[in-house]
Amino acid sequence: MEGLGTSVGIGIGKVLIYKEPKMDIVKENILDLELEMSRLENALKKAIKEIEHIYNTTLTTVGEKEAEIFTAHKMILEDPEYIGSIKEKIRTENINSEWAIKEVTNFYIEIFNNIEDEYIKERVQDIKDVSNRILKILLNIEAKDLTSITEKTIIVAHDLTPSDTAQINKEMVVGIVTEIGGRTSHTSIMARTMNIPAISGVENIINMVEDNDVMIVDGSTGDILVNPIDEDIIIYESKQKEFIELRKRLEEMKGKESISKDGYKVEIAGNIGTLEDIDKVIENDGEGVGLYRTEFLYMYRDRLPTEEEQFEAYKVVAEKLGQKPLVIRTLDVGGDKEIPYLNIPKEMNPFLGYRAIRYCLENAEIFRTQLRAILRASAYGNIKIMFPMISDIKEVREGKKIIKGVMEELRKENILFNENIEIGIMVEIPAVAVHSRVFAKEVDFFSIGTNDLIQYSLAVDRGNQHISHLYNQFHPAVLSLIKMTIDNGHKEGIWVGMCGEVAGDEKLIPLLLAMGLDEFSMNSSSILKARHLIRNISKEEMESILDEILSLPTAEDVEKFIDENIMINILPI
Amino acid sequence: MEGLGTSVGIGIGKVLIYKEPKMDIVKENILDLELEMSRLENALKKAIKEIEHIYNTTLTTVGEKEAEIFTAHKMILEDPEYIGSIKEKIRTENINSEWAIKEVTNFYIEIFNNIEDEYIKERVQDIKDVSNRILKILLNIEAKDLTSITEKTIIVAHDLTPSDTAQINKEMVVGIVTEIGGRTSHTSIMARTMNIPAISGVENIINMVEDNDVMIVDGSTGDILVNPIDEDIIIYESKQKEFIELRKRLEEMKGKESISKDGYKVEIAGNIGTLEDIDKVIENDGEGVGLYRTEFLYMYRDRLPTEEEQFEAYKVVAEKLGQKPLVIRTLDVGGDKEIPYLNIPKEMNPFLGYRAIRYCLENAEIFRTQLRAILRASAYGNIKIMFPMISDIKEVREGKKIIKGVMEELRKENILFNENIEIGIMVEIPAVAVHSRVFAKEVDFFSIGTNDLIQYSLAVDRGNQHISHLYNQFHPAVLSLIKMTIDNGHKEGIWVGMCGEVAGDEKLIPLLLAMGLDEFSMNSSSILKARHLIRNISKEEMESILDEILSLPTAEDVEKFIDENIMINILPI
Repeated sequence: MEGLGTSVGIGIGKVLIYKEPKMDIVKENILDLELEMSRLENALKKAIKEIEHIYNTTLTTVGEKEAEIFTAHKMILEDPEYIGSIKEKIRTENINSEWAIKEVTNFYIEIFNNIEDEYIKERVQDIKDVSNRILKILLNIEAKDLTSITEKTIIVAHDLTPSDTAQINKEMVVGIVTEIGGRTSHTSIMARTMNIPAISGVENIINMVEDNDVMIVDGSTGDILVNPIDEDIIIYESKQKEFIELRKRLEEMKGKESISKDGYKVEIAGNIGTLEDIDKVIENDGEGVGLYRTEFLYMYRDRLPTEEEQFEAYKVVAEKLGQKPLVIRTLDVGGDKEIPYLNIPKEMNPFLGYRAIRYCLENAEIFRTQLRAILRASAYGNIKIMFPMISDIKEVREGKKIIKGVMEELRKENILFNENIEIGIMVEIPAVAVHSRVFAKEVDFFSIGTNDLIQYSLAVDRGNQHISHLYNQFHPAVLSLIKMTIDNGHKEGIWVGMCGEVAGDEKLIPLLLAMGLDEFSMNSSSILKARHLIRNISKEEMESILDEILSLPTAEDVEKFIDENIMINILPI
Repeated sequence: MEGLGTSVGIGIGKVLIYKEPKMDIVKENILDLELEMSRLENALKKAIKEIEHIYNTTLTTVGEKEAEIFTAHKMILEDPEYIGSIKEKIRTENINSEWAIKEVTNFYIEIFNNIEDEYIKERVQDIKDVSNRILKILLNIEAKDLTSITEKTIIVAHDLTPSDTAQINKEMVVGIVTEIGGRTSHTSIMARTMNIPAISGVENIINMVEDNDVMIVDGSTGDILVNPIDEDIIIYESKQKEFIELRKRLEEMKGKESISKDGYKVEIAGNIGTLEDIDKVIENDGEGVGLYRTEFLYMYRDRLPTEEEQFEAYKVVAEKLGQKPLVIRTLDVGGDKEIPYLNIPKEMNPFLGYRAIRYCLENAEIFRTQLRAILRASAYGNIKIMFPMISDIKEVREGKKIIKGVMEELRKENILFNENIEIGIMVEIPAVAVHSRVFAKEVDFFSIGTNDLIQYSLAVDRGNQHISHLYNQFHPAVLSLIKMTIDNGHKEGIWVGMCGEVAGDEKLIPLLLAMGLDEFSMNSSSILKARHLIRNISKEEMESILDEILSLPTAEDVEKFIDENIMINILPI
């Protein structure tokens, strides 16, 4: 069997099928309204207590970020609109609490389900989780206890709520397999933090296995083996050992320099979006943040963030990083990133449209507010400003002019900021890579955004399944554009980083090192791996084969050449 | 006043306001059905006679293509569905012909107006024109006579139908100004062929001028002067003289070589879509066709064109061109070119989507049919095959493999074709320009498609009004990509052409010449102008300033440099 691996690692243990207790909810007319109300109040109180307890457990056994899920749950239980609607329903229709909860909850779920948004979808899970909790209390249903598992167990379930996951004994639960859910569900996130291998999307597995079956799960591949033969157990035990050793080896990379075998030092940084991501960067010993996606501050809300809100957000990150660099990218709205209250018109080709700096330069007040916040925060750390989606030098000049104006303002107000703050641009549009020699004269740094650069260079929307096979980071033209950008940046004496997915691509890191890339910014989880890799290759050796690679005809030729001539010589990790 | 110039040239004359006679159509019950039917039949017969007469006049005084408008009109009058519906309405509702015509016509117009298609919009005009003709006959309304105008006149109208335009005395009518209409309306097309300056889209002009006002119209700028002062008349008379002289000078370019002052010969070809375009290429002495857009064969119909239909279309053009080259581009569907029956799914970013060669390689039967038709036609002229939207060498190889298979088939069937037919690609995706050295090893020629190349290089959908200011053919990165492509093509010994709008851009032709572009393919109307320009510049001189231009920072700098250093020295045309 096979599913979607959502938390890496290998688990071998006995199956425990975890079923949501079935709840039969029937509509009943109540006789005593006061009694029913106090019944509900008591259940709510008990639910809040339970949640507070889970919050504390999660905080100590999992982590702060995960515990916050239960802060959100508590907020739902205290939400006057949600709870108010339930009470109102009981009162006006003279019905039992269970029925009222079911009706009101379904109403909310239906509304949320009509919204195409990954974030809102997660909120639906939260509401379900909370309403089930109250219902169980009202119906006196005891859930199966997951805290007292005493042997190596793999939990198999239709779905696991965060509440379920939080009470897992992480010493004994060695795997989680669910029928639904994806990489971004709360449960997947928690499994990753708890280092429990997890696989989702395995249809109908509940009916295909039994309690106490032996099961192997490989969270890296999504593979599942039920009652495996001894040979398989041996193979997977050794894989498991390797995996644990790898984790250890990666741990050892913490505190070490990112330096090649022949002594060439680079910077390996992390990409962040939400505030929580910064902890991951620090935990993985990132040497800075090469990309702070500020659009998250603007999303999932109904109005612009104020200067103060932004200032606080930037300041927190800057302070956490101390003297390590923090590259803040100005608002990159548009394309596939929608922010409804900004009222960006529907476009025929949003990826070739009114995005990022193009929007900001025409909405200068929004832009100035962000720049003021960034500049103010620059007094508290090593902040750099980066403009996204630049295609023309005029845009750079205009952006810098606005920064200059904001600086003037701050000076007049006697507000401190870094007078020498570096201003750079994303290189993600082919014309900028081609013309990078000239752009380099007007900025302090480049950061290559490979996702868009590939997309535009190849004219492929990689989200389009009909043509996604044409999107390929190994395309020699893409690599040539990257090299062109690095060479031209260096000719003009500026540093060149990269914050697209390619920066963390194991097979391309050796080439980027050869090209002289100064900063590699990636998903935090790749930082230590990348450092290990860099420490195992020689820049000079890689340089000697670079030209040959760039003149190969196709992406497949490039990948094959790398596999056969580079990867084979690198200590696997 | 100002409008949209739809036919160039300057006209000076007296205003004649041409109003559609007002037709009051009321619903009446008829007493004698047979009488009403014969009344309608007579009107139809008279209308057909009128149209046949206009057809003949148009054929001799305007041209074949324009006369065909009236073939279409006649077809409407003979269309069993249209006329049948009218008769049916009279019969079943016992009403007068006028009312039935009005109702049925409005029904069709409403349906057509709901279809977003420029072509269908024109069909609406045809139906209106035809129905008005029958109504006028039925109501005994005499239209104002435009044939007997005897002094220099500028016709001012809300709209002119092709029927109105066809009867114009083109010796005396020196300008047409209408309140509605665009560049592609029948009337605009006819005005251009008749060399009558025309301006459309001038709101409310009918109420702002009077019969016998003196008017100047400049069809190049869209400017309109009413009762101008003497100085203006003098200025415009001299402009008019210049314009006429220019026309003469361009005429003189016919039959001459496209050769630079220092003896460098290039080929100036035309772009064609519909079959009619080829006559324009020949009329303007094009040295071949650098781009035959075959998608027109697939559009405005409800099923695929057969091999035979395509073969005939390609053969006709090939034979008309004789030994002059004819580059046929294989089906370039998708993007903004919709062909409903191909069922291409709606895409989020169609310009970065499932288009052209990407579609053809996955729909090999459609592709093979086209290739068979092209290969068969290759026995009748100098045909070359060109693949659009190539981004990867794999696509070139796959396309060539399919051609090889088709050739094998034709050989077995003993069907003649050019065994050595050249196979080339459009260079319109940045990655291909960057990697052109390697692509050049696998094809016989390049043709640079600047419209898409600019769009992708700058990540700008030029149809998007919010950002169209960023779309600029003078962007130095775009020019560098063009140079890269030409250089790499020549290094591998293949010829390099260009079929995008840039090829006909007066300010860029000198740079393209300097870069060594071999073939310039453009709108037929620009061919003679381009030849004149080429004959007035020296390649060597242009080469000497090329590097300086390519290292300028912005598109504005490039255009300014060209204006000040090149255009100023060229004999204006």
